[in-house]
Amino acid sequence: MNKIVIAPDSFKGSLSAIEVARAIETGLRRVWPRVACVLVPMADGGEGTLDAVLSGGGERRSAAVRGAVGHGVDAAFGIRERDGRPLAILEIAQVVSITDPVGMAAPVGARSTEGVGELIRHVLDLGIRDFLIGLGGSSTNDGGAGLLAGLGARLAGDDRAEVPAHPEALARVRHIDVSALDPRLAASRITIMSDVNNPLAGPRGATAIFGPQKGVTPDLQARYDAAIAGYARLAEAALGRHAADNPGAGAAGGLGFALQLIGGEFRSGAEVIADLLGLDDALAGADWLITGEGRTDQQTLSGKTPQVVALRAAKQGVPATLLSGGIERAALPALGATFAGCFSLAFGPMTLAQAIADAPALLADAAEQVGRLLDGAPSSRGRQPGAT
Amino acid sequence: MNKIVIAPDSFKGSLSAIEVARAIETGLRRVWPRVACVLVPMADGGEGTLDAVLSGGGERRSAAVRGAVGHGVDAAFGIRERDGRPLAILEIAQVVSITDPVGMAAPVGARSTEGVGELIRHVLDLGIRDFLIGLGGSSTNDGGAGLLAGLGARLAGDDRAEVPAHPEALARVRHIDVSALDPRLAASRITIMSDVNNPLAGPRGATAIFGPQKGVTPDLQARYDAAIAGYARLAEAALGRHAADNPGAGAAGGLGFALQLIGGEFRSGAEVIADLLGLDDALAGADWLITGEGRTDQQTLSGKTPQVVALRAAKQGVPATLLSGGIERAALPALGATFAGCFSLAFGPMTLAQAIADAPALLADAAEQVGRLLDGAPSSRGRQPGAT
Repeated sequence: MNKIVIAPDSFKGSLSAIEVARAIETGLRRVWPRVACVLVPMADGGEGTLDAVLSGGGERRSAAVRGAVGHGVDAAFGIRERDGRPLAILEIAQVVSITDPVGMAAPVGARSTEGVGELIRHVLDLGIRDFLIGLGGSSTNDGGAGLLAGLGARLAGDDRAEVPAHPEALARVRHIDVSALDPRLAASRITIMSDVNNPLAGPRGATAIFGPQKGVTPDLQARYDAAIAGYARLAEAALGRHAADNPGAGAAGGLGFALQLIGGEFRSGAEVIADLLGLDDALAGADWLITGEGRTDQQTLSGKTPQVVALRAAKQGVPATLLSGGIERAALPALGATFAGCFSLAFGPMTLAQAIADAPALLADAAEQVGRLLDGAPSSRGRQPGAT
Repeated sequence: MNKIVIAPDSFKGSLSAIEVARAIETGLRRVWPRVACVLVPMADGGEGTLDAVLSGGGERRSAAVRGAVGHGVDAAFGIRERDGRPLAILEIAQVVSITDPVGMAAPVGARSTEGVGELIRHVLDLGIRDFLIGLGGSSTNDGGAGLLAGLGARLAGDDRAEVPAHPEALARVRHIDVSALDPRLAASRITIMSDVNNPLAGPRGATAIFGPQKGVTPDLQARYDAAIAGYARLAEAALGRHAADNPGAGAAGGLGFALQLIGGEFRSGAEVIADLLGLDDALAGADWLITGEGRTDQQTLSGKTPQVVALRAAKQGVPATLLSGGIERAALPALGATFAGCFSLAFGPMTLAQAIADAPALLADAAEQVGRLLDGAPSSRGRQPGAT
């Protein structure tokens, strides 16, 4: 064993991707003290994306912007070079997080994404035109109206008076004036990362599917959905683009819609991050890849981080093994096509709380055992493989 | 991968050794459909020994003998050929089981091992002189006085009247007449299997250590212990041997003492069973050994089945991997010296009840993943091993 690439996602709610990678390295080094371990902590555009990207270089900055209900938040973002140009990495949850107690104390009808627009303008002011925006973990359901307002658009009612960009007011919007929309956006390249494919409105839309967890009660649902659909038609007309029916328009309460309207394009978060972190280069000449995630099921094979990195490894002939916080056994047959072994960090019956509390040590131990098997087992000793 | 030996212990309370072995084979065959799997279901002399031994051949018989309180029990035993001679495999729990509701309904003071003596005589009547006796799971604490009585010894009091061979009466024993002890014992070879090293009496003796779980209450403890010690001196004098202080004399409530008095010798159950089942022959030319047990901790390395089979494998250069119901993580560093990987059947947080209920499927899945790792991982593909 000469070179091992360790490229896990974070274990959501437990460990960051870099913590996962380091724990795995710790275990492997007990078996091979001098093996080259290349750590590529991954992310999929959701929680942990900023940390993962910055673990490989770049600079962490922050900006004071408005949170979901206009209160001040200090939003972290990252700057990294890509292809000779600066790239900003934004997580909208830094602005309108579903775990922000101030924003969540107010009704969802009063929450807006204006601060996301402010954050983008702050980055534009730094001279940066390339954006990577992760859409996970928002508290908002404003169709992205706040984003447009924060970037200079003006929402007005019948009387041409300005209308606030939040769900409770959206039904009053009759005119959207984009003449003052930040002109620098036209020269910008915005990549949106999300694992949500829902359209903006309707029965599969943001309000119907993700609204309830943000506080959209059944009595509000139809009204908010109709208000967002109406606003969306006006915004599409104003910007001369259609986006409401696009997959992902319903991500982050409709931020996926508004970001597409201003030119953003969806890409697989894991693919983008893998490119950004140079995963393919890391895999060159590697003997083995270990990836991981907090929980594994059939969804893993639909483009989640472990699948993305395993396929990239396969292209270079590098086998991939999965270490997971927990694996749904029904997925094992399908996982077998992608992974040379799927292992959990559980060493026997245990509670989820125990698994989370001991996750780093458990991961190191699990990685060690996998290494011991490879190191000590038959084919490591030069026997003829594949004889059966 | 050409030949894999699968030699697990039973998962106590969940799966027999043969069930464990078959589940592991099922999983491995998903990876290598045509690999030669040699199943050697193991045991250590405790629960499951008879089943494991008979899974490899031989005949299951039974005999009607007296249970712990004189009620009738149908005691299963096995007959197998060894070195051209018939060998009987006895489990004393078939006669005086701690799970026998009739015996356990009576006080421990009334329970006796006479039926074990009867069972031995039954086997002697079949012309068999070789015995393998597993001592696990007894309900009795009679110092083996019952065994001696069942084999023809006579316990008597001051008045020369016969005294029953149970703890409540033992203090009255003043004379032990062994003139009628079955003479065929002298020509017999009795191998005793137990993982208990305690002496017969005293603070580390049978009554003090194992008595409580059989119903010896604190008020009875000193009295029973003294009675057993007194009986033991008489028995030793009568048979001209010392055994009370031997390691294992305190096994099975003192059956370990009485069996040694009549010539029995302790051996490691796992070693005896491995010999009997031809484990060494099975390992010849094998690429890999998988062993297993229900629960793994530091004790595993003190001569439990997985350790025994792994050391035999190592002597032939065959790496051994452990699949366990649950592994105490603190034992992993030490286990690493013996096993090429230790894996549990848990695929994430789960309860013990779930693990037991799904054990066969979980084991098959775990074995499959271990196989997939070996099959797909670096050194299986002919890369240079050990370069670090």
